[in-house]
Amino acid sequence: MKFGGTSVATLDRIRRAAKRVGVEVAKGHDVIVIVSAMSGKTNELVGWVGETSPLYDAREYDAVVSSGENVTAGLMALTLQEMDVPARSWQGWQVPLRTTSAHSAARIEEIPTDNISAKFAEGMKVAVVAGFQGVSAEGRITTLGRGGSDTTAVAFAAAFEAERCDIYTDVDGVYTTDPRVSPKARKLDRIAFEEMLELASLGAKVLQTRSVELAMRYSVRLRVLSSFEEQSDDAGTLVCAEEDIVESNVVAGVAYSRDEAKMTLVSVADRPGIAATIFSALSDAGVNVDMIVQNISEEGRTDMTFSCPTDQVARAEAAMAEANGNIINFAELIADTDVAKVSVVGIGMRSHTGVAAKMFQCLSNEGINIKVITTSEIKISVLIDRKYMELAVQALHDAFELDKAA
Amino acid sequence: MKFGGTSVATLDRIRRAAKRVGVEVAKGHDVIVIVSAMSGKTNELVGWVGETSPLYDAREYDAVVSSGENVTAGLMALTLQEMDVPARSWQGWQVPLRTTSAHSAARIEEIPTDNISAKFAEGMKVAVVAGFQGVSAEGRITTLGRGGSDTTAVAFAAAFEAERCDIYTDVDGVYTTDPRVSPKARKLDRIAFEEMLELASLGAKVLQTRSVELAMRYSVRLRVLSSFEEQSDDAGTLVCAEEDIVESNVVAGVAYSRDEAKMTLVSVADRPGIAATIFSALSDAGVNVDMIVQNISEEGRTDMTFSCPTDQVARAEAAMAEANGNIINFAELIADTDVAKVSVVGIGMRSHTGVAAKMFQCLSNEGINIKVITTSEIKISVLIDRKYMELAVQALHDAFELDKAA
Repeated sequence: MKFGGTSVATLDRIRRAAKRVGVEVAKGHDVIVIVSAMSGKTNELVGWVGETSPLYDAREYDAVVSSGENVTAGLMALTLQEMDVPARSWQGWQVPLRTTSAHSAARIEEIPTDNISAKFAEGMKVAVVAGFQGVSAEGRITTLGRGGSDTTAVAFAAAFEAERCDIYTDVDGVYTTDPRVSPKARKLDRIAFEEMLELASLGAKVLQTRSVELAMRYSVRLRVLSSFEEQSDDAGTLVCAEEDIVESNVVAGVAYSRDEAKMTLVSVADRPGIAATIFSALSDAGVNVDMIVQNISEEGRTDMTFSCPTDQVARAEAAMAEANGNIINFAELIADTDVAKVSVVGIGMRSHTGVAAKMFQCLSNEGINIKVITTSEIKISVLIDRKYMELAVQALHDAFELDKAA
Repeated sequence: MKFGGTSVATLDRIRRAAKRVGVEVAKGHDVIVIVSAMSGKTNELVGWVGETSPLYDAREYDAVVSSGENVTAGLMALTLQEMDVPARSWQGWQVPLRTTSAHSAARIEEIPTDNISAKFAEGMKVAVVAGFQGVSAEGRITTLGRGGSDTTAVAFAAAFEAERCDIYTDVDGVYTTDPRVSPKARKLDRIAFEEMLELASLGAKVLQTRSVELAMRYSVRLRVLSSFEEQSDDAGTLVCAEEDIVESNVVAGVAYSRDEAKMTLVSVADRPGIAATIFSALSDAGVNVDMIVQNISEEGRTDMTFSCPTDQVARAEAAMAEANGNIINFAELIADTDVAKVSVVGIGMRSHTGVAAKMFQCLSNEGINIKVITTSEIKISVLIDRKYMELAVQALHDAFELDKAA
């Protein structure tokens, strides 16, 4: 059972979450609870780090921002103990949840189960684990990146072969789009791993991408549900394999991401290996590049456009400035931080044609100019001016009739 | 260099503290910086734990409240890096600072120096260590009790054989009494370890008792100084051996503690071993008993009075209730939480008589009733009604002419 930041935002909410855990314990289950930091805490810590050091040492960043989860883990264990449920907390390094040394974006390498299993054998009923964090081979604290607590939860579910993995959050499931943007948004009862994966990576904040990847790989029965509503057996949205979905729309949902920046390297030498060099440098600098578009070459030079989160623009610019004149050689780097990404996603696209045409026509009807396009087997994404984002989402939701079930 | 909570209360203050560290690095020193939590943070965490669980599991308490120091340690390391001073942070378990398993009041057992020394050898100039915390043999986080960052600082100074240990705080040294209570309070240039020890244990908040004990045992050159004033070579107060103090008053200072509770076990069976049983039970419950007074026995029964911090009253009552009727057997437990402790301290008492008489006369002149008295070689303490506390401190400060240097 994983409780996100809003589900543990106050002592009262922690108590409410603990009661849900108590219900599962009363059913005879051993439970591993993964907790996020109390809502707002991580942002406060991230803010302090950013203010202290714009190009921070990611190892220190991790040491600082991981502290919020430790607080919740201890408080949750205490709350359960008060309810006479035998519980104790674990921080990442105590499990130890071993990760790579890619600070702030570490990947889980191993979750030894012996330590926690021994406590279950001794009568402990709930292991409360601080989400989002681990420890590197060098013994330093790592974090899994924002939203990493979902990944922690799925990884624990896989490692302990849990019956299921319930992700409690502030929404009651996965919607066809963000209900704050489109009032016609409809809750999905089931969604395929692949679709959830695309939606998650596209900025739908319900689940973190890697958590869905992991769940798919290890066939973890993943359920997203609200910690603010009464539970029932079919509450929330079940994220499951494609074959478990009987009927579905061609498009499952419309996703958007506001925090996108479009960066263009103007007049790059167009020779083999140049793209690899550019994107290695960005990767080394910890920039998460999303879309990549290369224009046709003229006189041996080309423009290279990519997108990345807006908060990584400074980092990307620094990395490119350092590389320029050295190996890469470009005339100018233009950063457009006033863009948004809008995407449509659905496994039905594999068997249905015309989805792209319908999407572009719909945007064109609204007078929205498309700046960059990328596609995958089950997704089409476009970058547009940020001011048109809500309009685009609503128009696409209507065009694909997502308010109606299949 | 140790920086207390008010010295790192904001990012700006952390920056100011880092500059002081930078000055020492510029002089060619390797520096270990011990940091407290940002002022107010630990109280917030302690409050949450108390609200969650009045009789909390001390292991979870430690896991929660230690997180504040981790935040400051990371931010301090980042701030130093921004100033181009090579620095990194260490949490207690990373050093590892090994302690006993007496959670919330753990004692330091070992500080291996190899890990940090290796980094100094590699060119790191500052090791920033989260104060107040360590790790038990069971791999759980421990804390050293409130003010434990001073102890951390002195222990590191001893382990690394540091030239000196500077404790930066919000006051510019040790005073004859709390200047907020008596405006005539005077700053001492030097104070003997023994006197500082008594003052610290009596509630003078400048230094934590155990830190002074440690400094005395390992002859650590300990200086208390303000992080808010310009530094000079003779700033603050030097805490040193008795023989380094040339002239001194008979009484060095007047201390007080507001957070005392007087507990009386009424009609306890007066037989050998009963005191041991009572105070073992209190110790097992983590109650820090301070003064103990036993009245004369009547018909084989006696009253046993002790004092403890007010926030441990619930704990003491629970421990005594559990023991009653079992081994201890008493009629009633009366808790008076409306008392304060006032003490006079001075190594001069060893060679001067009449200090106690003068103290009691002074309190009597002010119409203050004395409830409990305890004395040591260099200290006399009394419990009085809390409402007279300030009056008592001021009157005693005048009576012993502490506003005048010897």
